[in-house]
Amino acid sequence: MGIFKFMTPEIIFGTNSLSQIGESLLRLGAKKVFVVSDEGVLNSGWVERAVQYLKDCKLDYCLWTEPTPNPKDYEVEKGVHAYIESGCNSVVGIGGGSAIDAAKSVALLATNGGTIRQYEGVDLVTSPLPPMVMAPTTAGSGSEVSQFAIIGNSTRKVKMTIVSKSLIPDIAIIDPLTLMTKDARLTAHTGMDVLTHAIESYISLAATPMTEGYSLQAIRLIAEYLRPSVASRHNREAKEAMAMASLQAGIAFSNAILGAVHAMSHQLGGLLDLPHGEMNSILLPYVLEYNLISCPEKFKNISAAFGENVDILSLTGAAGKAIKAVKELAGDLDIPDSLRNLNLKEDQIDFMSLNAVQDACMTTNPRDMKAADVKLLFRRALGGGF
Amino acid sequence: MGIFKFMTPEIIFGTNSLSQIGESLLRLGAKKVFVVSDEGVLNSGWVERAVQYLKDCKLDYCLWTEPTPNPKDYEVEKGVHAYIESGCNSVVGIGGGSAIDAAKSVALLATNGGTIRQYEGVDLVTSPLPPMVMAPTTAGSGSEVSQFAIIGNSTRKVKMTIVSKSLIPDIAIIDPLTLMTKDARLTAHTGMDVLTHAIESYISLAATPMTEGYSLQAIRLIAEYLRPSVASRHNREAKEAMAMASLQAGIAFSNAILGAVHAMSHQLGGLLDLPHGEMNSILLPYVLEYNLISCPEKFKNISAAFGENVDILSLTGAAGKAIKAVKELAGDLDIPDSLRNLNLKEDQIDFMSLNAVQDACMTTNPRDMKAADVKLLFRRALGGGF
Ligand SMILES: [Fe+2]
Ligand SMILES: [Fe+2]
Repeated sequence: MGIFKFMTPEIIFGTNSLSQIGESLLRLGAKKVFVVSDEGVLNSGWVERAVQYLKDCKLDYCLWTEPTPNPKDYEVEKGVHAYIESGCNSVVGIGGGSAIDAAKSVALLATNGGTIRQYEGVDLVTSPLPPMVMAPTTAGSGSEVSQFAIIGNSTRKVKMTIVSKSLIPDIAIIDPLTLMTKDARLTAHTGMDVLTHAIESYISLAATPMTEGYSLQAIRLIAEYLRPSVASRHNREAKEAMAMASLQAGIAFSNAILGAVHAMSHQLGGLLDLPHGEMNSILLPYVLEYNLISCPEKFKNISAAFGENVDILSLTGAAGKAIKAVKELAGDLDIPDSLRNLNLKEDQIDFMSLNAVQDACMTTNPRDMKAADVKLLFRRALGGGF
Repeated sequence: MGIFKFMTPEIIFGTNSLSQIGESLLRLGAKKVFVVSDEGVLNSGWVERAVQYLKDCKLDYCLWTEPTPNPKDYEVEKGVHAYIESGCNSVVGIGGGSAIDAAKSVALLATNGGTIRQYEGVDLVTSPLPPMVMAPTTAGSGSEVSQFAIIGNSTRKVKMTIVSKSLIPDIAIIDPLTLMTKDARLTAHTGMDVLTHAIESYISLAATPMTEGYSLQAIRLIAEYLRPSVASRHNREAKEAMAMASLQAGIAFSNAILGAVHAMSHQLGGLLDLPHGEMNSILLPYVLEYNLISCPEKFKNISAAFGENVDILSLTGAAGKAIKAVKELAGDLDIPDSLRNLNLKEDQIDFMSLNAVQDACMTTNPRDMKAADVKLLFRRALGGGF
């Protein structure tokens, strides 16, 4: 094992923890807070609640709810104008990964200037960001604890991955109550995104003993609680477990990075604006099948985390159970088992395959991939069943 | 589960990671660095090495090596005078828990003023501390990642526990190579301190899913690697494993706090200046025996982490194996199984028992303890065997 680094924000977790958002900002020296969210979250009532907590702490604020799902470069650049005009000195993101990635990107540009495209890649941020507090409401993206922001490049039609320790928020507030307003479909998609984070970080070439335990624990929680969480908005135990799974998978992938599933789903999001969690869920078994030979022992541990009795099986048999468990879970959540409805054209697949091998997430995939390998996997996923 | 918080410093782990100490300080804005260490570490050559890395980065420094094992209030206060006179703007600690606790306490007083006694207790620090980078050389105290500093009160003859998030260093650099200069006795004592951190944090009333996995993983590593680490200074695999165990147990106890073993050993350290790790090791089985009824399921998991085949045992049988495993490990490391050599007097036991129930670590012990209970445990530990 070489030298590795490990970082997390300060974490506040638990039912009603959102009520600590005002004090958290005060501790960081906030005076006026730029609150980033989106229309969907606004309707859920959580933004209103958070704003009340800010008022209780005598904090001034400015609300900005323009980012769309899969936020685009021009949206972020509009956001930073609004930030500067508002005279805010701190940033809050409330919502799913899109709102939080948009909030982090606004904070980045607020102190570093330029356009968001300049920061695509690893470690290109030079100036410290304003204080940031993030409150996820979807238990999915992990962006509230990660050093990543994913922003769509509207010209090139790709998703840009921005990686920098500066993007790790100061404080992440994870309140499982916020998950009780999610509908079943979003719960399923974000839950499968969490599973993808947990699995890809676990088999990542950059996994360490600091991240592997969190990855496996997230898989265990998902195996037990994602189905009941999708089944009922009111199952508090399941919501708490999924919030914890999202947090642990988020810390794991922020430090161990991801793999080919994300490198490929970023292309579908960038080119066709398709939902991130659903795309990951569809691609995951195909990519796992490809990755299996790189680390069967780890696959066996994933199977065990899913509750399979691996001791009575051969290594190959035990490892394969992991893929079966993923497919069964996605099936139970009514997620399609292929991309066959997409009608992708040949040149689109070529374009996405070439871009996927350039994605920052590809560097830690446990099995080498060339564009031709990606293309083959896209084809398999389009065909369905294997 | 109520609301909980979780925090760690930025961590840099691995062979030769000490070489990153200069850049780490530069990143934090350091100009002149106050380097705290002690005579023992100085002789090992690691301070010289670290100072060279500072020079390589054109950092000025001032070396202060006066703290003794179990550092005292007056030492820290001398240290802060030296800090202020030196014109330093940042603090480094290199060494065991004593050097790092002294370094953190100097940093505390540098910006908060007064005497260290004013800060005894929880959350009494108001001003931010200067940038701090800590490099442990003993794989024991966990102070490099914790929100604790333990300083002796020279008047009252007790150890003061200072708890504050401000005491979490900015960066912890854990280089397993530094462990290759430790002798067998220190390796055994600090290793058993790590085991005590892992077990007490795991059964703590403040344990959370963010800490429990690290606690158990630390126990697994200790069960496998502490004996070979004591056996040979040159076993790099064992040193790396013990450095990881110390780190994970440190993160666990910083966030989940400890228990009665530490509350009691702090008294032996405060009154009689006895070695922390050895005292913990002796007290641990007696306290575990007392705590067993509070959480037998957790004891069973500890037994499993020690490699016991718990599936074939009753819950009580499985839980008891944890205590047996601790005793066998301490025995193999030639650590005494009682305090009988201490010749403690009745009034000393009374004094320590009364102080132990006031110790901050006692609040999270999983079984209630009054002074009379502590006294009974001290008596059992003095008698030996049970
Ligand atoms: Fe994702
Ligand atoms: Fe300790």
